[in-house]
Amino acid sequence: MAEFKIREGTSSSSVSREVEAEGHLIDSMILPKIWDRIMEMGGDFEVLEFRVGRRKTDTSYIRMVVRGRSPQHLEEILREIYLLGAVPLEVREVTVKPAPADMVLPDDFYSTTNNPTYIYFKGRWIEVEDIMMDKVIVVDPVEGRAYCKAIREVKKGDLIVVGEEGIKVKPPERPRESIGIFRFMVSEASSEKPSTTIIRRIAQDLYNVKKNKGKVVVVAGPAVVHTGAAEALASLIREGFVDVLLSGNALAVHDVEAALLGTSLGISLKNGVPSARGHRNHMVAINEIFKAGGLRAAVEKGILRKGIMYECIRRGVPFVLAGSIRDDGPLPEVITDVVEAQRRYREALKGASMVLMLATALHSIAVGNMLPSTVKLVCVDINPSTVTKLLDRGSTQAVGVISDIGTFLPLLAQELQKIKDENGVCWET
Amino acid sequence: MAEFKIREGTSSSSVSREVEAEGHLIDSMILPKIWDRIMEMGGDFEVLEFRVGRRKTDTSYIRMVVRGRSPQHLEEILREIYLLGAVPLEVREVTVKPAPADMVLPDDFYSTTNNPTYIYFKGRWIEVEDIMMDKVIVVDPVEGRAYCKAIREVKKGDLIVVGEEGIKVKPPERPRESIGIFRFMVSEASSEKPSTTIIRRIAQDLYNVKKNKGKVVVVAGPAVVHTGAAEALASLIREGFVDVLLSGNALAVHDVEAALLGTSLGISLKNGVPSARGHRNHMVAINEIFKAGGLRAAVEKGILRKGIMYECIRRGVPFVLAGSIRDDGPLPEVITDVVEAQRRYREALKGASMVLMLATALHSIAVGNMLPSTVKLVCVDINPSTVTKLLDRGSTQAVGVISDIGTFLPLLAQELQKIKDENGVCWET
Amino acid sequence: MAEFKIREGTSSSSVSREVEAEGHLIDSMILPKIWDRIMEMGGDFEVLEFRVGRRKTDTSYIRMVVRGRSPQHLEEILREIYLLGAVPLEVREVTVKPAPADMVLPDDFYSTTNNPTYIYFKGRWIEVEDIMMDKVIVVDPVEGRAYCKAIREVKKGDLIVVGEEGIKVKPPERPRESIGIFRFMVSEASSEKPSTTIIRRIAQDLYNVKKNKGKVVVVAGPAVVHTGAAEALASLIREGFVDVLLSGNALAVHDVEAALLGTSLGISLKNGVPSARGHRNHMVAINEIFKAGGLRAAVEKGILRKGIMYECIRRGVPFVLAGSIRDDGPLPEVITDVVEAQRRYREALKGASMVLMLATALHSIAVGNMLPSTVKLVCVDINPSTVTKLLDRGSTQAVGVISDIGTFLPLLAQELQKIKDENGVCWET
Amino acid sequence: MAEFKIREGTSSSSVSREVEAEGHLIDSMILPKIWDRIMEMGGDFEVLEFRVGRRKTDTSYIRMVVRGRSPQHLEEILREIYLLGAVPLEVREVTVKPAPADMVLPDDFYSTTNNPTYIYFKGRWIEVEDIMMDKVIVVDPVEGRAYCKAIREVKKGDLIVVGEEGIKVKPPERPRESIGIFRFMVSEASSEKPSTTIIRRIAQDLYNVKKNKGKVVVVAGPAVVHTGAAEALASLIREGFVDVLLSGNALAVHDVEAALLGTSLGISLKNGVPSARGHRNHMVAINEIFKAGGLRAAVEKGILRKGIMYECIRRGVPFVLAGSIRDDGPLPEVITDVVEAQRRYREALKGASMVLMLATALHSIAVGNMLPSTVKLVCVDINPSTVTKLLDRGSTQAVGVISDIGTFLPLLAQELQKIKDENGVCWET
Repeated sequence: MAEFKIREGTSSSSVSREVEAEGHLIDSMILPKIWDRIMEMGGDFEVLEFRVGRRKTDTSYIRMVVRGRSPQHLEEILREIYLLGAVPLEVREVTVKPAPADMVLPDDFYSTTNNPTYIYFKGRWIEVEDIMMDKVIVVDPVEGRAYCKAIREVKKGDLIVVGEEGIKVKPPERPRESIGIFRFMVSEASSEKPSTTIIRRIAQDLYNVKKNKGKVVVVAGPAVVHTGAAEALASLIREGFVDVLLSGNALAVHDVEAALLGTSLGISLKNGVPSARGHRNHMVAINEIFKAGGLRAAVEKGILRKGIMYECIRRGVPFVLAGSIRDDGPLPEVITDVVEAQRRYREALKGASMVLMLATALHSIAVGNMLPSTVKLVCVDINPSTVTKLLDRGSTQAVGVISDIGTFLPLLAQELQKIKDENGVCWET
Repeated sequence: MAEFKIREGTSSSSVSREVEAEGHLIDSMILPKIWDRIMEMGGDFEVLEFRVGRRKTDTSYIRMVVRGRSPQHLEEILREIYLLGAVPLEVREVTVKPAPADMVLPDDFYSTTNNPTYIYFKGRWIEVEDIMMDKVIVVDPVEGRAYCKAIREVKKGDLIVVGEEGIKVKPPERPRESIGIFRFMVSEASSEKPSTTIIRRIAQDLYNVKKNKGKVVVVAGPAVVHTGAAEALASLIREGFVDVLLSGNALAVHDVEAALLGTSLGISLKNGVPSARGHRNHMVAINEIFKAGGLRAAVEKGILRKGIMYECIRRGVPFVLAGSIRDDGPLPEVITDVVEAQRRYREALKGASMVLMLATALHSIAVGNMLPSTVKLVCVDINPSTVTKLLDRGSTQAVGVISDIGTFLPLLAQELQKIKDENGVCWET
Repeated sequence: MAEFKIREGTSSSSVSREVEAEGHLIDSMILPKIWDRIMEMGGDFEVLEFRVGRRKTDTSYIRMVVRGRSPQHLEEILREIYLLGAVPLEVREVTVKPAPADMVLPDDFYSTTNNPTYIYFKGRWIEVEDIMMDKVIVVDPVEGRAYCKAIREVKKGDLIVVGEEGIKVKPPERPRESIGIFRFMVSEASSEKPSTTIIRRIAQDLYNVKKNKGKVVVVAGPAVVHTGAAEALASLIREGFVDVLLSGNALAVHDVEAALLGTSLGISLKNGVPSARGHRNHMVAINEIFKAGGLRAAVEKGILRKGIMYECIRRGVPFVLAGSIRDDGPLPEVITDVVEAQRRYREALKGASMVLMLATALHSIAVGNMLPSTVKLVCVDINPSTVTKLLDRGSTQAVGVISDIGTFLPLLAQELQKIKDENGVCWET
Repeated sequence: MAEFKIREGTSSSSVSREVEAEGHLIDSMILPKIWDRIMEMGGDFEVLEFRVGRRKTDTSYIRMVVRGRSPQHLEEILREIYLLGAVPLEVREVTVKPAPADMVLPDDFYSTTNNPTYIYFKGRWIEVEDIMMDKVIVVDPVEGRAYCKAIREVKKGDLIVVGEEGIKVKPPERPRESIGIFRFMVSEASSEKPSTTIIRRIAQDLYNVKKNKGKVVVVAGPAVVHTGAAEALASLIREGFVDVLLSGNALAVHDVEAALLGTSLGISLKNGVPSARGHRNHMVAINEIFKAGGLRAAVEKGILRKGIMYECIRRGVPFVLAGSIRDDGPLPEVITDVVEAQRRYREALKGASMVLMLATALHSIAVGNMLPSTVKLVCVDINPSTVTKLLDRGSTQAVGVISDIGTFLPLLAQELQKIKDENGVCWET
């Protein structure tokens, strides 16, 4: 152990504060980021104690004094480095203020990151529940619990965390044990990676997550159907690899169109040619579902007998379809109020171990904003910008694949089938 | 005039039907498409009368017999060519059937195109009002009027047009008079066109539309703000070039963030660097607006004093902000129910002469589906796929520009200013 | 047969000229384009005779008078419509002028299209050999032959076709017989088409071309190797589906790197992770080939024992590797002079029935410029702009697929194997 | 100064080696990368001495022992971390071996990075001249100098550096003094940055480079002309902002086409419409230049009187045009042999302070491979993948701008004009 201690006492003052940090400070780039930010903001620091974790499993520890030019300057620096994982040595109580009105925050409200977050409330650290990006922390002093809430959910009088004191953020640490697919790909999405190799490894990882009773959430766009991959996704659901499906109206409409009429946007999925009167087909699909009274009713009545939505309903896999301004219909099961849809998405994402984002920017960005940074993420899109944007959301275990969903999903289904044939199924399906 | 007549009488039978078409049949590719479709579907045709319009202003006329292998085959062919502009010679009454339930259509419902459409009802042609793509036609027999309606708006008992009889579609005709910007660009979006030249011509066209009292609708995404073009769009509104703004929550949030804090997504718009604690800024913007009670209230109270939303509110330019699943907040003025938001968008689009779609796929596709094919369209996006997708919606006067909205809008504003300085303003602002 | 004749005689004058056209004038859009262009240029026309081919196999015929405002105006119009397939009724001799110097053309030289082209020389129509886009026609009066030549190949005194007289261009006619994959996709590349369906149809078409003794040329970029599809392409070569390979230095370098070291650009193709000291690997591959004395020598010496280049060499499939400014090495077999490389590409493309362009813009555009419009084209790229650019080159039978070559090629190889297993091999391999 | 020393002596053995590193170890991420790599490869390390530079101008120093499982394992680890900036404490002589043949390297050759590199030869550190990526180091023992050479330039008997001993790489250190445009943008290309702000800052930086007598190299593709920005680039040359132009045949051809005929690829740059017989125009341009005897001759004879090439020739700004397989012509000044073109590019790049890469992937990647990591890089392209690929080449001061070159260059020229008007010109033009 490389250890290094200079002074015992603390030395906080109005322009200096002693902070510490612990964890995989070096290889997860936590410490360099903290130092970098201090210097970038014109501050100064002095290292007081430094223990470098040398082995893979060792954590590192640092204690240092941070200095600013003025108390306010110091505050600004501290706010930034607290977000990066530094913790003040003298822990102070978190400050809360009541919301002045429904959906209105106290001015100095603390805006959350998607990293695990703790507040020091009444003398002890409490983990903030349901942590998500760009939300606020509401404290329940009676229960001694803290929740992450969207601004729309804030009620007058809710105790909102303000300032940056008494808050501890645990920045993401990259797993060191094995060089898994999620390790090497971090923010290096490229269309020039070995596709089938990556697909094989994602399949293996997905299988492992399920074997370990993990929860797999699929976020999918209508391109899954247009590109002819509906059956591949349906098979994943049928085989028990999917625990929740999040999507919008279009996926369901075109999935029904494919199931009932064999086309997607009027293009035959069998031979790729536009079918006669095909422009009506998605409208026919919508009408059939309205006639039946909804997707579930259509399955129960034997009208809808295959496809993605069918498999979800038949196997009891929950789905949430969020409405959007470009919807035709939308179908009865679609939640047309976006605030309610967000609430349902958040509910459905709780406890997720792995999220597959398949060819949808809109819903993936929404989901990205709701996820803690610890969830494994696989994002597949033909558009490099979409993949980059999603990987930028700060997930630590994310694979970006720039590929054609119409070829990716069938190959993923093939690989999963192979693994299943070799290993059997170890979970309830 | 090249004229050509073979037989006078009509020759419709169960496997043949006499049809006619009139208009700029050749240069608007109407006739070739009709012939093409007949042959593609295995049908046959015989030309009975053909007058070719030779001069730019002449229209052409054709009368011909179409034959199928069976009555059903003939029907299938006719359905397709009616959509392309062919009209049966013996006009038959349009068929209507009552909707069996709210939001449920009769099975054989007619699905609309975005071209001007007429139905032959009680012995006369009625134009369908508010024509849009992928909707149905509801007939009001008392008033003798016909409306284009979304499936969600259909009430039990509404008389819905079914089949393809008694319906006349007027396919788009490309303007011949002058080779305008809207003529040469049709579905030829490319990033390798002379950018400043195109911008100059769009500016000229926009000026002309306003001079002729036309209605200009802007559909804009948040990239307008992120790329630093908010002031350029605000100046267009201030100068009276914009009659309606359609957007979502994010544009308004980041516009407010820019106006209040000088950043967009925390990036300083002045020097391009991330500002301290910048990740909170859009949340601060949202909170300020909630505190004020909304965007309008924030303008009235003097809190919001510049930017896109400010100019809209100050000048009474109506705006509609549609909610989406990825919204933070959303702001009080945002319409969170997407069905209601669609209704408001449709309302706002009525009578539009020209629509500028600026760096937003989501809202532009929604708007594209609501527009008749006769409206001029300018679509600007950095992503070629978005531009192509939008031009494919069947607009006849569409310019696709693959460009950076952050450079496009300032240059457009410069050009408009020049034209205005030279020509003065001829409309109420 | 719809027939229509007005006048027998011809009526050409200094401001009018009688022209005719024959072929699938309507469904191939030839006639509408001619009329459109005349009107666009401010000219006028009168139809004298018009026979519309009604059945799939019928061709149409038109004879008409074209008028301009002045002899020069008429000339300009005629030049344009001759390129579109119109032919003057009174055929005049083609005009030729000697090249004034090596690589210098007479000013009024005729610039070729990629459509089949004929010149009227000494009283008879001669087909121009090796037709390609943007070249000139050189006439050999002794042999009575005409050749398409690049400007660099022109020698002083060569007889160069000038003006537009005596030249007949046969514009592409779309095949009508069956709605094949090449029919429906024309310039409609989209990432939202059913991928596996399209791959299956391309496989079928490729198989048919080979069954009919057609020549298949593959143009491939290094992404084939980076994305892990080298083995799939190697298998296509091994199975006899490829007659010529056109590429550059990088494909060969990374193919050798993959064969010798199992990496591509240092990334392990087996597990997708960067291998130790991997940045050297492509340099090692180059050095091994230089040491052996070239790719062929490396195969003969048993150093190179698998991969794309190995299969080409082992099976005697000719390949041409063109150098580029970004090459490392380049390898001994690479032709570093681009003019020579072009000559070798042109040579290799002669007689091609089908060309697969796989993930390379540079070489595909080069090849696109060398191909007559009658060759079947399959263009696969992850970048929509590349696909669009290639389809714009005027091929009539072109399929654009926006997909990931790393998933596309393995699926194509799977489909070809299936077809082969079912049908056997009918050609020499 | 945070200092920390454990042991004085060194402790190198067959499975351990003492190494040191000095510089901005923390904020330039050098140290974390070294530690990361050691652990990733299964090695171990112990920190012996560590001085943290606390102030912006301080450097840090570390001395540590690295351990492997076996001598070979240790070697592998050391090779990797030497590339990252670690230096063995006991400096050993660099090992050289003679090249066994022309263009053939000894097997264990050292493959260069683009970072400043030193070899320990005959008891002293020599800096490798003309450092570039993926090349080899040739030592001249007589002169005591070391050169970076491409494999094609290696002659039999040249002393080539092998192994990893006696080599010191100075990894890039990010400048700390000011948050310049080159600081904040590092590998964060996005189309959602404030465009005009970034352009203004690039203009300022370009101006400063020139004021400080720096050398500015422009690498440009034909899209500069197609998008109508030729005049903007010509003005930059005219105003003395460009010292070297690197490009290919197409830029010159279309620049000449624009200058002589007012079109680019036949599209009028004045009104954006295709001009009559426009498809010939670039062939006419080529012919005019061949007739004149080349670009320089065309300028001297008064044929070419404006545009990019004209300004270069008139002002004596050197240019290198590299041939490619897709060239029409190519023009006489084009270097058709790519190996020779590379040599000329390398020559022209020597001493460059700043390189602008404008809308060309091909030439920019070539240039990227030739540049040391210390040169400032501005890369502008509409395609995000191109920008990302170029920024990945390891430049430390790189700005990636995803924008439309047709709007970017005119705005850049505007900004430069403003700065010049305000500050005057301080350099010879």
